[in-house]
Amino acid sequence: MSILVVGSVAYDNLETPAGKRDDVLGGAATHFSVAASFFTDVHLVGIVGHDFEDAHIEFLRGRGINLNGLEVVTTGKTFRWTGSYLNDLNSAETHDTQLGVFAEFDPTLDEEQKTKPYLFLANIHPQLQLKVLDQMETPQLVAMDTMNLWINTERDALQKVIERVDCLFVNDGEAKLLTGESGMLAAAKTLRAWGPRIVVIKRGEYGSLLFTDAGIFSAPAFLLDSIADPTGAGDTFAGGFLGSVARAGNLEDETLRRGVLFGTVMASFQVQGFGLDRLRTLTRDEIEGRFSQLGKMLTADTSPLFAKA
Amino acid sequence: MSILVVGSVAYDNLETPAGKRDDVLGGAATHFSVAASFFTDVHLVGIVGHDFEDAHIEFLRGRGINLNGLEVVTTGKTFRWTGSYLNDLNSAETHDTQLGVFAEFDPTLDEEQKTKPYLFLANIHPQLQLKVLDQMETPQLVAMDTMNLWINTERDALQKVIERVDCLFVNDGEAKLLTGESGMLAAAKTLRAWGPRIVVIKRGEYGSLLFTDAGIFSAPAFLLDSIADPTGAGDTFAGGFLGSVARAGNLEDETLRRGVLFGTVMASFQVQGFGLDRLRTLTRDEIEGRFSQLGKMLTADTSPLFAKA
Repeated sequence: MSILVVGSVAYDNLETPAGKRDDVLGGAATHFSVAASFFTDVHLVGIVGHDFEDAHIEFLRGRGINLNGLEVVTTGKTFRWTGSYLNDLNSAETHDTQLGVFAEFDPTLDEEQKTKPYLFLANIHPQLQLKVLDQMETPQLVAMDTMNLWINTERDALQKVIERVDCLFVNDGEAKLLTGESGMLAAAKTLRAWGPRIVVIKRGEYGSLLFTDAGIFSAPAFLLDSIADPTGAGDTFAGGFLGSVARAGNLEDETLRRGVLFGTVMASFQVQGFGLDRLRTLTRDEIEGRFSQLGKMLTADTSPLFAKA
Repeated sequence: MSILVVGSVAYDNLETPAGKRDDVLGGAATHFSVAASFFTDVHLVGIVGHDFEDAHIEFLRGRGINLNGLEVVTTGKTFRWTGSYLNDLNSAETHDTQLGVFAEFDPTLDEEQKTKPYLFLANIHPQLQLKVLDQMETPQLVAMDTMNLWINTERDALQKVIERVDCLFVNDGEAKLLTGESGMLAAAKTLRAWGPRIVVIKRGEYGSLLFTDAGIFSAPAFLLDSIADPTGAGDTFAGGFLGSVARAGNLEDETLRRGVLFGTVMASFQVQGFGLDRLRTLTRDEIEGRFSQLGKMLTADTSPLFAKA
C-alpha cells in the first residue's frame, strides 16, 4: 500500500566530526520518502524554490517517489538549515535557518493524495499537520513526528494532532518534555492515553521502544564503528518503519515489531554517509543482510529455567 | 555447578530520591551471592567485623550460601559505605568510606574453594584479584568486575587481571575509560583482544550488550515504574548471569544470552527495594515471570522481507 508524506524538502549545510558539507539534499519528507521508497510507493507533498536542482528531482523520481505534490515556487529559495554536531552526535546545534518558500507552505491535497491509506505527518507546524489531517478521507494509519520547538511553542495545536494520530514517533527527550515523566514506561502510558495506540520512542545509540496494546518491544540499535552524519536519522527510521508496514499491508503487532527493526536498519545506513549519500547506493540485499544481523542481536532462548530442572 | 565469589561484605548508609536508610546489608559479594543463590550453590569469601549482625549471617545461610570463607575479625568494624543518588540514579555520590577490617582483607582459599568451577572476582583491589586467581586450580569460568577507582589508580595490575579472566563485566563508562573508545563496538573489540572472550557491557536503563565469538546479543532493560535504590544492581546482574550459567553447566552462547537476561531480571528486582529488601521475599516464580515478560520484549519475526514478496 502506498504512503503519503507531508513535510520539508530542504538543503542542509552540515558539519560533523567526520567533515563539512554544504548544499546537501535534506528535509524530513525527503529522508522519509527515500527510506520508504525501498519498501513501497511514496507520494511526497512539499515545497521547494527556484534553486532546487533538477538532479535532485531526478534522484527522487528515480527512487519511484511520486512528486505530483512537490510545489516548485520560482520566486523564492528552498528551505535551508545550517547545523553542526561537533560536541554530541545525538544533538544538533542550529546555526542558521532560512525558511525561504517553506514559510508559505500550505499543503493542499489532490483527490489521489486524500485517499492514501498511510499518512506520515513529518515534523512541520502542528497547524499544518491538522490541515492535512482535515483533508484526508479514511486513512488506515496516520503517523506523526514533531520536535522540541513545537512542544515548547505550539503545545495546544500539537496536542490536537497527537490526539488524532494512530502512531507517534518521539525521541526520549521529547517523550519527557511532552509528558513530564522521566521513565519511558510512564511516558508511553501517558502518550498512549492521549490517543496514539502505537508509540515509538527512539533512543539513538540505545535502540528504540515500541508500545502497543500487545505490549512492549525493545529493539537494539545496530552497532556501528562510526557515524558520518546523524541528520535525518529519525525520518529515515520512520520511513523504514512505515514503508515496511505499508508493504506488509496490516497492523499486526508482529508487523509493527518488524517495522521498528526495518526503521533501525534504514537509520543505521543513513548515518553512515552525509545527507542521502549512503542510501543512494543502498540495495535491498544490503537491507536484508543488516536486518538479519539485527535479528541475531535479539535472539535468545526464553524458555523457562526452573521448570526445566 | 557451584560458584566461588570473593569480594566485599558491607554495611551501607544510603540516600536516594525514595528515602534514606542506615546500616543496610550490602557489599558486592553479598549482592552477588544472594542473587546467584536463587540459581545454584554459592561459596562466599569475604571479611566482616565484630559489628556484623547474627541476623545477617542467618539470612545469608538461609539462602544456602556457604560462609566458610567469611572471616569475622573481632578487633574491627565491617566495611561501611555512605552514599547517595540524589541527582542521578545512575551515578552514586560517595560521602564516606570506612574500610574497617576490609583494609586487612587477604583472601586465602581452602582446598574446597580452590577447586570451584566458577569464580567471580567482585570489585576489589586488582592485586587481591590476582592473588585469588593464583590460588585457583582449574576453574571453567572466571568472571570479574572492577570500578573507575582501579582503572584510574591501579591500571597495570588491573590489566593483568583482565588478561587472565574469561568474562568481564563493565558499564559503558568503564568500557570507555578502559579502552579510550567511545563506541561500544570498538570498546568490546579492544577488551576481548586483551583476553576475556565474554564481555558484558551494562548500560543501566538501556539494557546491556553481550559480546562473544558467536556475535552480539543486545538485551533490553526491564522497564520499571520507579527505582528505590540502585546500590548493588551491577553485582546482582552478575549474580543472575553467573548463577544461571552455572546452573546450566555449559558455556554455549545460548546459555550466555539467557544469563544476560537472568542478570537483567535479578537487577530489576534488586533496584525495587533498599539494599536486599526485595530479594528477601523474591521467589523463583517471580523470577520466571519477569524472565518471560523480558522475553516478550525481544521477540520479533526476523524472517526476510523482500524474499517473501
